[in-house]
Amino acid sequence: MMILPIFLIFSLLSSASNAAVQDFCVADLTGPDTPTGYVCKKPTAVTVDDFVFSGLGAGGNTSNIIKAAVTPAFADQFAGVNGLGISMARLDLAVGGVVPMHTHPGGSEVLIVVSGSICAGFISSSANKVYFKSLKKGDIMVFPKGLLHFQINAGKTPALAFVSFSSERPGLQILDFALFANDLPSEIVETTTFLDDAQVKKLKGVLGGTG
Amino acid sequence: MMILPIFLIFSLLSSASNAAVQDFCVADLTGPDTPTGYVCKKPTAVTVDDFVFSGLGAGGNTSNIIKAAVTPAFADQFAGVNGLGISMARLDLAVGGVVPMHTHPGGSEVLIVVSGSICAGFISSSANKVYFKSLKKGDIMVFPKGLLHFQINAGKTPALAFVSFSSERPGLQILDFALFANDLPSEIVETTTFLDDAQVKKLKGVLGGTG
Amino acid sequence: MMILPIFLIFSLLSSASNAAVQDFCVADLTGPDTPTGYVCKKPTAVTVDDFVFSGLGAGGNTSNIIKAAVTPAFADQFAGVNGLGISMARLDLAVGGVVPMHTHPGGSEVLIVVSGSICAGFISSSANKVYFKSLKKGDIMVFPKGLLHFQINAGKTPALAFVSFSSERPGLQILDFALFANDLPSEIVETTTFLDDAQVKKLKGVLGGTG
Amino acid sequence: MMILPIFLIFSLLSSASNAAVQDFCVADLTGPDTPTGYVCKKPTAVTVDDFVFSGLGAGGNTSNIIKAAVTPAFADQFAGVNGLGISMARLDLAVGGVVPMHTHPGGSEVLIVVSGSICAGFISSSANKVYFKSLKKGDIMVFPKGLLHFQINAGKTPALAFVSFSSERPGLQILDFALFANDLPSEIVETTTFLDDAQVKKLKGVLGGTG
Amino acid sequence: MMILPIFLIFSLLSSASNAAVQDFCVADLTGPDTPTGYVCKKPTAVTVDDFVFSGLGAGGNTSNIIKAAVTPAFADQFAGVNGLGISMARLDLAVGGVVPMHTHPGGSEVLIVVSGSICAGFISSSANKVYFKSLKKGDIMVFPKGLLHFQINAGKTPALAFVSFSSERPGLQILDFALFANDLPSEIVETTTFLDDAQVKKLKGVLGGTG
Amino acid sequence: MMILPIFLIFSLLSSASNAAVQDFCVADLTGPDTPTGYVCKKPTAVTVDDFVFSGLGAGGNTSNIIKAAVTPAFADQFAGVNGLGISMARLDLAVGGVVPMHTHPGGSEVLIVVSGSICAGFISSSANKVYFKSLKKGDIMVFPKGLLHFQINAGKTPALAFVSFSSERPGLQILDFALFANDLPSEIVETTTFLDDAQVKKLKGVLGGTG
Repeated sequence: MMILPIFLIFSLLSSASNAAVQDFCVADLTGPDTPTGYVCKKPTAVTVDDFVFSGLGAGGNTSNIIKAAVTPAFADQFAGVNGLGISMARLDLAVGGVVPMHTHPGGSEVLIVVSGSICAGFISSSANKVYFKSLKKGDIMVFPKGLLHFQINAGKTPALAFVSFSSERPGLQILDFALFANDLPSEIVETTTFLDDAQVKKLKGVLGGTG
Repeated sequence: MMILPIFLIFSLLSSASNAAVQDFCVADLTGPDTPTGYVCKKPTAVTVDDFVFSGLGAGGNTSNIIKAAVTPAFADQFAGVNGLGISMARLDLAVGGVVPMHTHPGGSEVLIVVSGSICAGFISSSANKVYFKSLKKGDIMVFPKGLLHFQINAGKTPALAFVSFSSERPGLQILDFALFANDLPSEIVETTTFLDDAQVKKLKGVLGGTG
Repeated sequence: MMILPIFLIFSLLSSASNAAVQDFCVADLTGPDTPTGYVCKKPTAVTVDDFVFSGLGAGGNTSNIIKAAVTPAFADQFAGVNGLGISMARLDLAVGGVVPMHTHPGGSEVLIVVSGSICAGFISSSANKVYFKSLKKGDIMVFPKGLLHFQINAGKTPALAFVSFSSERPGLQILDFALFANDLPSEIVETTTFLDDAQVKKLKGVLGGTG
Repeated sequence: MMILPIFLIFSLLSSASNAAVQDFCVADLTGPDTPTGYVCKKPTAVTVDDFVFSGLGAGGNTSNIIKAAVTPAFADQFAGVNGLGISMARLDLAVGGVVPMHTHPGGSEVLIVVSGSICAGFISSSANKVYFKSLKKGDIMVFPKGLLHFQINAGKTPALAFVSFSSERPGLQILDFALFANDLPSEIVETTTFLDDAQVKKLKGVLGGTG
Repeated sequence: MMILPIFLIFSLLSSASNAAVQDFCVADLTGPDTPTGYVCKKPTAVTVDDFVFSGLGAGGNTSNIIKAAVTPAFADQFAGVNGLGISMARLDLAVGGVVPMHTHPGGSEVLIVVSGSICAGFISSSANKVYFKSLKKGDIMVFPKGLLHFQINAGKTPALAFVSFSSERPGLQILDFALFANDLPSEIVETTTFLDDAQVKKLKGVLGGTG
Repeated sequence: MMILPIFLIFSLLSSASNAAVQDFCVADLTGPDTPTGYVCKKPTAVTVDDFVFSGLGAGGNTSNIIKAAVTPAFADQFAGVNGLGISMARLDLAVGGVVPMHTHPGGSEVLIVVSGSICAGFISSSANKVYFKSLKKGDIMVFPKGLLHFQINAGKTPALAFVSFSSERPGLQILDFALFANDLPSEIVETTTFLDDAQVKKLKGVLGGTG
């Protein structure tokens, strides 16, 4: 049976290719965006390089106020994850580095420590309970969707971690930037956070906020 | 540490803004529609007015056969809810007013009585059990997705309610309009509803149906 | 045809009732919880009162530090919304009242002003842009899922609003309570928020935090 | 390489079986129900017979008022589909048979005509537009979720169709049973449907309704 | 009340049609694709023929190596199912016919035997347990999403089955075509499947693979 | 305002804690399973250790036929990810090691190379196109849900990778184990894969299959 001519199998092959499954939807970043992701590149234009990303290979620049860098591989950087509900980022923490309190509005996160040690935690909304722990190399921790969380270099050497998200565009809302790096009037910031005026103005000064 | 020059924090800021989260997807009503909502307006074109809608501030016109008005704030009226899985509507019921038997194919509904009193109910598909009750000001009631339900002014004053839906485009299929306000042949209506021919023709006359 | 004896239709009726649709899943709060909501009450135990909730009829107590009260009708209070992807809450703002900066990790929110006027806004994670506006009676505003937002009484009279969520358990993470009302060590709070030690300790004192 | 002793592969096999994937969740109909389906039978108790159902092999009894029978294979009859988002039913239409106007609140439907011919249609909620057509053997038609639709034997021989749903528990709300086969007071039925009192009482008589 | 002039009901009708529900999203195959399906045809261009498909009425050509034919009615063939989470296909098995081992990455499948008898089965990933059975006319079987499964004509006459999927684009990955009908280097095929070189080259020859 | 007595804020705190958000649903592995994950541990029993997992810190045992080990941190091993739509695994590839052709029926995967180099690829179902590439340290690759894929150590040193999935229970169906490590009769394997009898029996011998 195995030696039948190839053309005899064409009818099935063609019906199979007619099946037109959507295995993936590589983002066409020049096209419109939709509630569930970017429109897809034409399948014929897709290559293996759409599914491979090398941007996490080098450490981010940690010469900044937080001595840390977050390098994302979300759908905007890594078009192949568009629509697949997953993405990654690289986290570099110099000695003394910290990823400040933040949330990802769109997804849960799992972090794995590749080198160094990291104190990480999150705050649940139920009774405001805090869950935090010092993680060593090889440890993983999960941060449920939308909750405030943080990572701090807990050691005396640089730390490296990779994080994954349950969304290709999980978002990143850093608390201090949300409060102090825009034009939200100081009076509103103070009223809604109970922070002192001096504190608000000091941080606006550091982070470039106005108003 | 707080007094470092601003430019030192740019590397994180830029990586954060690269994160390209999709916080929202304000509907571009001039663009194509998709199975999960309209394509998004360019983020740079979005303003606070996309997230605010004033169309529910005034009562709908209840000078009609049902002495009621439903004013929707769905994605087509209120572009900011596109893709967010929520919407609202205003319900005005004059004395004697009724929102006739209807379904929302795409979402569950919660109603809150703001003034007056309303008799509301739904019919489950399991054993056709009916759940209905007279609601007073401040009461809320939930109508599960897709089930037939109704609201009747149960008092001697106009009633006002706001309703929310678990979809930005829940749909609205009013039973009488579905049966009697189109060109579905009377014979088919009668065969599939057991209604008498005279009844069908009477209601077609009232509601403008043909065939 | 309409006068056939009732027993002749039993075969269809019974097949219909065999269809065993799940129209709803009223929460059995005594049973186990699952990733998508509480297990369901037995259908035979369900009554109309599971779908009606009167707890939003009266104003919450605003004699507190924020001069505001949020009264939820989530699945834990209003069992009928379990699994339906929608819920409500009542928002009372005395003169000078404020709902402090907070997020709902699990859902988007729509607010309608029923009386008074409210200044409301949210901060997007993209470039930390702020969207806020003063809302008058009848205005609605949407707050996309997971983003920091706030409401402030903008007038000289008490304000009342009802809010709906795209989840029956949207969560509520109030920033100040998350940071200052638990046992997260002050040092971690300061490191991850850039707030001064005195500021952190002051607010911990007010809100009952330790560590 | 292929002749290595079996025990050498055990470490991978065991890690694979530890992977504990949830391939399926056969309904344990004696356990609690959840918003997304029944709890699962223990995997060790599952057999091939959980995935096979023979109940659609024989025609339903069409000796009833509608000369039709709907035989469901939903999760309650066919435990293997629990949680999988698909189910089936068999549709027998004697000569003159009709499946009356109805909705499936929980899913879309595809129908295939296996013998005979069937006039089928649905009513959209947008402008109440009607889509109906006479289907011959081999034709398929889709009925979008939650919309009113019907099927009528359009020929002079019995018709047989199989229907599939995009849910394992799509529900079935037959309009006449919802309106006339329960204890919803006639006055409410009349007010919310505009039907005449005599019409309502006649159909309540036929279908066993009270009130 | 029923004899009020038609124009009095226009205010509700217009608000209802403003409701802009999305009952369906017929695929515009010329437009862009998105992660959740094709963009929608303009509602005004939609006709009943978008919801009816006659392509499953005739048997597929089984004069091929597998003596079988799969004729799909997925979104690419049957635009009306776009976005609705359901689709169908026709399965013709000549005597000795077989649908080889395959998966549908995007959906679960239910099969109904319309004529003949079919031996069908699937392999779970938990402990690699096999579930298979010989199905007779009228039997249905479910194949959970993503698992390897097969169908073999178990009788002495042609067999016919219809299958439905819990996705409008479930995909079809036929194992032999995936391994042997493309340019994946033989060395990689052998390393990742443990198959002998001769076996791989033999099947590449039959199925047209290179490399 | 900040110095009000603590008890004055209790009314809001209690309403907030009443809000009963479900931030997470740590798996209670002794309770029933549901279509969307295990039932939840009581919140009061949850500790930070439910969200941290150390099992990926050490390399798996690669002294086996494939010179590779996959160590999962799925919901069954790492209860904290239950319901969150994300999980991880560790992949150790000794020199010459290979993760054979396999699928994850329940989720997409992203892999990051931490040391060594890995040749990885997947086969799409559309025209059976192959996408594969040699990945170096720091490269990431995405494998869309349900598609056949593989990883091979492409270097002369051991390779280490971490993989994340868009599901807390993505499943793992290894092709050879599915075909040759169970009791699926050889005749069926041969008929549905076109493999020669000798090849099937050889691999059944290696992998412990019967029948």
